[in-house]
Amino acid sequence: MFYHDRQLQYKVRVEKPNPEFAKLLQQAIGGVEGEIRVCLQYLFQAWNSRGPQKYRDMLLETGTEEISHIEMLATAVALNLEGASTALKEKMAASNPLVESVLGGKDPRHILSAGLGAMAADSNGVPFNGSWIVSSGNIAADMHANVYAEATGRVLATRLWEMTDDPGMKDMLSFLIARDTMHQNQWMAVLEDLGNVHPIPNSFPQSQENQQFNYTFVSTNINQEPSPHTRWTEGPSVDGKGTFTFMHAEPMGGMPDLSKPDPLTHAQTE
Amino acid sequence: MFYHDRQLQYKVRVEKPNPEFAKLLQQAIGGVEGEIRVCLQYLFQAWNSRGPQKYRDMLLETGTEEISHIEMLATAVALNLEGASTALKEKMAASNPLVESVLGGKDPRHILSAGLGAMAADSNGVPFNGSWIVSSGNIAADMHANVYAEATGRVLATRLWEMTDDPGMKDMLSFLIARDTMHQNQWMAVLEDLGNVHPIPNSFPQSQENQQFNYTFVSTNINQEPSPHTRWTEGPSVDGKGTFTFMHAEPMGGMPDLSKPDPLTHAQTE
Amino acid sequence: MFYHDRQLQYKVRVEKPNPEFAKLLQQAIGGVEGEIRVCLQYLFQAWNSRGPQKYRDMLLETGTEEISHIEMLATAVALNLEGASTALKEKMAASNPLVESVLGGKDPRHILSAGLGAMAADSNGVPFNGSWIVSSGNIAADMHANVYAEATGRVLATRLWEMTDDPGMKDMLSFLIARDTMHQNQWMAVLEDLGNVHPIPNSFPQSQENQQFNYTFVSTNINQEPSPHTRWTEGPSVDGKGTFTFMHAEPMGGMPDLSKPDPLTHAQTE
Amino acid sequence: MFYHDRQLQYKVRVEKPNPEFAKLLQQAIGGVEGEIRVCLQYLFQAWNSRGPQKYRDMLLETGTEEISHIEMLATAVALNLEGASTALKEKMAASNPLVESVLGGKDPRHILSAGLGAMAADSNGVPFNGSWIVSSGNIAADMHANVYAEATGRVLATRLWEMTDDPGMKDMLSFLIARDTMHQNQWMAVLEDLGNVHPIPNSFPQSQENQQFNYTFVSTNINQEPSPHTRWTEGPSVDGKGTFTFMHAEPMGGMPDLSKPDPLTHAQTE
Amino acid sequence: MFYHDRQLQYKVRVEKPNPEFAKLLQQAIGGVEGEIRVCLQYLFQAWNSRGPQKYRDMLLETGTEEISHIEMLATAVALNLEGASTALKEKMAASNPLVESVLGGKDPRHILSAGLGAMAADSNGVPFNGSWIVSSGNIAADMHANVYAEATGRVLATRLWEMTDDPGMKDMLSFLIARDTMHQNQWMAVLEDLGNVHPIPNSFPQSQENQQFNYTFVSTNINQEPSPHTRWTEGPSVDGKGTFTFMHAEPMGGMPDLSKPDPLTHAQTE
Amino acid sequence: MFYHDRQLQYKVRVEKPNPEFAKLLQQAIGGVEGEIRVCLQYLFQAWNSRGPQKYRDMLLETGTEEISHIEMLATAVALNLEGASTALKEKMAASNPLVESVLGGKDPRHILSAGLGAMAADSNGVPFNGSWIVSSGNIAADMHANVYAEATGRVLATRLWEMTDDPGMKDMLSFLIARDTMHQNQWMAVLEDLGNVHPIPNSFPQSQENQQFNYTFVSTNINQEPSPHTRWTEGPSVDGKGTFTFMHAEPMGGMPDLSKPDPLTHAQTE
Ligand SMILES: [Ca+2]
Ligand SMILES: [Ca+2]
Ligand SMILES: [Ca+2]
Ligand SMILES: [Ca+2]
Ligand SMILES: [Ca+2]
Ligand SMILES: [Ca+2]
Repeated sequence: MFYHDRQLQYKVRVEKPNPEFAKLLQQAIGGVEGEIRVCLQYLFQAWNSRGPQKYRDMLLETGTEEISHIEMLATAVALNLEGASTALKEKMAASNPLVESVLGGKDPRHILSAGLGAMAADSNGVPFNGSWIVSSGNIAADMHANVYAEATGRVLATRLWEMTDDPGMKDMLSFLIARDTMHQNQWMAVLEDLGNVHPIPNSFPQSQENQQFNYTFVSTNINQEPSPHTRWTEGPSVDGKGTFTFMHAEPMGGMPDLSKPDPLTHAQTE
Repeated sequence: MFYHDRQLQYKVRVEKPNPEFAKLLQQAIGGVEGEIRVCLQYLFQAWNSRGPQKYRDMLLETGTEEISHIEMLATAVALNLEGASTALKEKMAASNPLVESVLGGKDPRHILSAGLGAMAADSNGVPFNGSWIVSSGNIAADMHANVYAEATGRVLATRLWEMTDDPGMKDMLSFLIARDTMHQNQWMAVLEDLGNVHPIPNSFPQSQENQQFNYTFVSTNINQEPSPHTRWTEGPSVDGKGTFTFMHAEPMGGMPDLSKPDPLTHAQTE
Repeated sequence: MFYHDRQLQYKVRVEKPNPEFAKLLQQAIGGVEGEIRVCLQYLFQAWNSRGPQKYRDMLLETGTEEISHIEMLATAVALNLEGASTALKEKMAASNPLVESVLGGKDPRHILSAGLGAMAADSNGVPFNGSWIVSSGNIAADMHANVYAEATGRVLATRLWEMTDDPGMKDMLSFLIARDTMHQNQWMAVLEDLGNVHPIPNSFPQSQENQQFNYTFVSTNINQEPSPHTRWTEGPSVDGKGTFTFMHAEPMGGMPDLSKPDPLTHAQTE
Repeated sequence: MFYHDRQLQYKVRVEKPNPEFAKLLQQAIGGVEGEIRVCLQYLFQAWNSRGPQKYRDMLLETGTEEISHIEMLATAVALNLEGASTALKEKMAASNPLVESVLGGKDPRHILSAGLGAMAADSNGVPFNGSWIVSSGNIAADMHANVYAEATGRVLATRLWEMTDDPGMKDMLSFLIARDTMHQNQWMAVLEDLGNVHPIPNSFPQSQENQQFNYTFVSTNINQEPSPHTRWTEGPSVDGKGTFTFMHAEPMGGMPDLSKPDPLTHAQTE
Repeated sequence: MFYHDRQLQYKVRVEKPNPEFAKLLQQAIGGVEGEIRVCLQYLFQAWNSRGPQKYRDMLLETGTEEISHIEMLATAVALNLEGASTALKEKMAASNPLVESVLGGKDPRHILSAGLGAMAADSNGVPFNGSWIVSSGNIAADMHANVYAEATGRVLATRLWEMTDDPGMKDMLSFLIARDTMHQNQWMAVLEDLGNVHPIPNSFPQSQENQQFNYTFVSTNINQEPSPHTRWTEGPSVDGKGTFTFMHAEPMGGMPDLSKPDPLTHAQTE
Repeated sequence: MFYHDRQLQYKVRVEKPNPEFAKLLQQAIGGVEGEIRVCLQYLFQAWNSRGPQKYRDMLLETGTEEISHIEMLATAVALNLEGASTALKEKMAASNPLVESVLGGKDPRHILSAGLGAMAADSNGVPFNGSWIVSSGNIAADMHANVYAEATGRVLATRLWEMTDDPGMKDMLSFLIARDTMHQNQWMAVLEDLGNVHPIPNSFPQSQENQQFNYTFVSTNINQEPSPHTRWTEGPSVDGKGTFTFMHAEPMGGMPDLSKPDPLTHAQTE
């Protein structure tokens, strides 16, 4: 069950409102690298957790924190939009529309649909999509999804940090970047706790997987170049359970052979 | 540039066609855990690669292999659908529709839209979505996305393996599971090659991130329970650059304060 | 800022796990009538609120409660799926796949993608979509969106209530239906507070709208039938600002006249 | 069954073509607040109507009118795009692309995909989505969806009206705003006709809903602040069937308790 | 501008309601091959038409007819759903849920979301998507899109015809199939009218296209098999403007060479 | 099975990087007219092909070539983005954000999400969607889908060619336009090979379609104007199997008559 406080987790100040930066910030709210995604992802992982309890608890703790990050960013968007519609109207009136860009890099829906507020969408206005939520029922797979989410999330936040000179925005992003550092570490800590065991899932008997292709790098290069002698073409596999080898791709499956069309499907007759 | 062979990478046999299993296999084609996703993901990462060359090469090699996996699974879907429309029509004619299920767990579009062929969609018929493709411009972030993709992909393949007794299908899945083992190892090998450096991105100066919150577990539990003394609440951080601490969440950001609505947005007047 | 408790808002019991009911429950989680939608909708309305404070507070209170409803339903899905994969495997093995339905009304991704957990999707597996979140910057418009959301949400919940005989599920739904009753009343209370003023937005000067068509029912029926003498064709308008009239549709705009194609767009030449 | 006339319902003139305004107008065509949405929504409600006839008739009348609104707006988009590609090409050639914005706030697909015509998409180019169509089988719920649709639609139209100085566009929008006024009134007239009965659906026996939580405002604020004494925390409920009370949220559901993972789902073993 | 009649274009009778067939029919309403698609496609092509008038007129005529087809199919869905919820409830109550399929091939949202009505979605419940609407500004390209749409639409309708024995449904489909025959012919008649000129667009000077690759079949088969001597590898091209030749694919573009990462994007440093 | 070469199919040079043109090029990668679509479309048609072999082969050949086109365009996007982030940062710092457009016509996700690389999305950032892939099981329908795809693809490429003065980009587009010419011809060659038989599917007995409406142009114009005497209203039908006639639309289906609502769906009671 959930509760809230009227205050923000961390301060959100904007010295010079900038509707273009508001558009950029949307990526961190409703984009694939954004806070709605990690929020729902950690919460669903918690709710679907079938043990151990300490992992469920942690996921619930951090999933809850992420709601506060959405809140901070939504506030930042609203603050960056202040004054935007008046400015835009003035410029619209003054412009020669076939020559001059008025809307520029603004999101038109920030005015048209949201009345100068934040939306559940990315920086191109593409809506948040529930298909991004990973909760697979395998905790190691989920933790890798989480490390990836925090890695791309931190990459995004550092790019946003580069794109602004507003001290308030830089400070807020500095906080969010720090939290991404911690969260990357958290999920790696769970993986360490789990023994960093690979391949995932570790519950499938590896004896059942094809033994000739589970540690072989298959080169599909038509020029049949020799092995590049890299970490992934020779030596012990990273999971410690095999030895990397190298081979040139060759077809082993023959030509596929499908039956003639079923008359009921009304294929074309010749 | 790309080439093909008329033969399959590995043999695809179906002893007893099963349209319900064809529906399940769609998840491995057009689902978020499926082969179209990894195929395009590795290829885009290769095409966008700004060095070193060995990583670009590897991504191109394996991205190309994944096309062959889509091909195998599409063939498997088509083979599992053979006879389905005739059988369905017979059952449709015989049934009392308000009592008996005819379509059952089949995908109706396998007949209606594809004429007993595979589709670029998941096991519920939801279309493949390009937003799943991760190519972030940061290779470590991308590799974590790849490990996650192969982890959930292998989890999916093992579940499909459990759901069938068809020896041809089990053999094909045994091959695909083996490849997922290798591919998980490959991406981890790149991460090892890169020094397993965290946090990602490692090019952002950590001195610029908030120093009070980058290694602190924030507990949002309302009951203010004490630290659980876990790997992620005390001791050295996994990245080796900090020390985990534990704190109870508290608001530091004050109440947000937005301006009054801009008249041009036509908020409600009271 | 947000907090949680490890306990649920209301008890969630399932006597007889039923994976088909788990599929139905997904509509109340990730469907357009579901709890993720109202949760994010109320929270975004709160975060974008530019006053008065009492409305922002209420939206934050109730948006937070809705997270707890997602949690309850996700738990209900997980409980309804217990035993499902074993049962399915047994049936899959025993079946004659061209004759008998095995998957039936189950969601295949509940096993394949979620490992017997809940997903951010509707009862057909279509992902939650951020475009459903309404936060328009006009509080009266938002409140109508909220009344509608709770009305369809309560309709959905009563249908789910009809579809189950499980006492635990009926009890949980009875609670959620009660909350929908309250929430419908809440949003109507805000509208009452606002004076139930129409048309929305009330800040646009009605003198600027076309005065011949703002209270006229336009009948597009080709047979030019006379007025049906209904509440919406005569008498005072519901907003109290006009008088309903009735007219037959007739074109006033003439034929549209577009220029010839621009050569740069490469229209077909004839 | 449907018919058309070659003429427009109302005149559509553009004095100064403005491709940026064409982009804004797309929100009123293919956006969530737009005319395709209301058109299909009213028509589906009519087609699914199971009585009384007068409501079906009205829905069909107005759903048909909305097609004419899509037509007007599509014409307005095409007129605003005239000259755009030539102007853009000239500017593209002259510009220093790393310094100067050429495309600005234009929708690139207006040239690339539509050849200077309108699209079934919103102002960010996000395609119209059928999930927005509400036809619930409960007429009161549908009418609230309709009031909300016309409220956000009218808010959108007033914002578009503010953003242009073109007299032709202002005149067209003045007509569409007037129609939104009427349509808001129409749907409210149906609700009045239905007795403004709440909660919706009124066919579910309220005795079956949880009696302790159907008129209680649940405060999720962690600080347990006292009741704000508002319209929604005390006094008679708006539906006239209960009395508002106020309580602080507390968990009643205990800790959820899911079973251990099913081995067939290949959760991680520890 | 548009008008309607209360009557249907053609009679819609259902002798034995069948909710599974209702699900199948959804493909013809909201699927990619369905009537909403062709309706909006022809109407947008008409509205965007920049001449000649006879094509605009025809598109408007037929686009209007398609609305009547959506109406017929929506009615057919509603009629096929009659009795479905009662039957389902009875079966739900009687079933042993882990063994027996209850929902089977029904669309759960037909009850949960639509209350036994039609939806703007396909046979898997995936919403209609505006990206399917083709209106390119080149009439020949549009006509090919239309021929394709009617071809797949007629294929779909014949499959639906095969899947039912209900005489009313067969009669309705026989009418819709006939209309698809006519509409295929109509769009081909326009192409004939336009001179069946290829390649499309015919306004681009072919002298500007690469002259070595515009009539050459490029074989990407790794085995460098000889030309198959088919219609598309030798002889005059179908457009009458070139001669087909055959070649084996070979790379002409060299290795791509991207710059090192820009520091501001925070790629990983090594 | 598939192979690759490290080299590109054709050279990709960019003299003056232009991030706005990079945005335009995305339409040719991930847009509905783009290369991912044709690539997957031809491959799925090949994989689902049930004969004859020569068509399967050709589809596989050309589907494989299209992967090389995605690669070329992705490379072109990356090259056009070089220098973009530094330039943008400088401009961002210098600008008065409420007055001047900085982002202009750039895609913000090119920096934020892709780190100056290509994405699987269109020119508005809308992700590629698998619903665009047509593989119907009827080869004539598929070929028309392919002609349409190459027609809109070539229209798009010529518009891109118009929008740039960069000689490298013009040269690359000149190659892609040439390939579109060839591919249009290829699919028409298959149709010629198949006898250009209509209507599609030709396997459905035309005697089963309604004989009064299969060659009749239905005019839905309310003004009942006389026949326009066009190619599609009189004379032999294009398929050679009927004679075009002209009629005014009239309703033949009567009024639809649905049952009263089922109580279990909780319609509103009055
Ligand atoms: Ca975060
Ligand atoms: Ca694979
Ligand atoms: Ca709720
Ligand atoms: Ca309207
Ligand atoms: Ca039709
Ligand atoms: Ca191509």
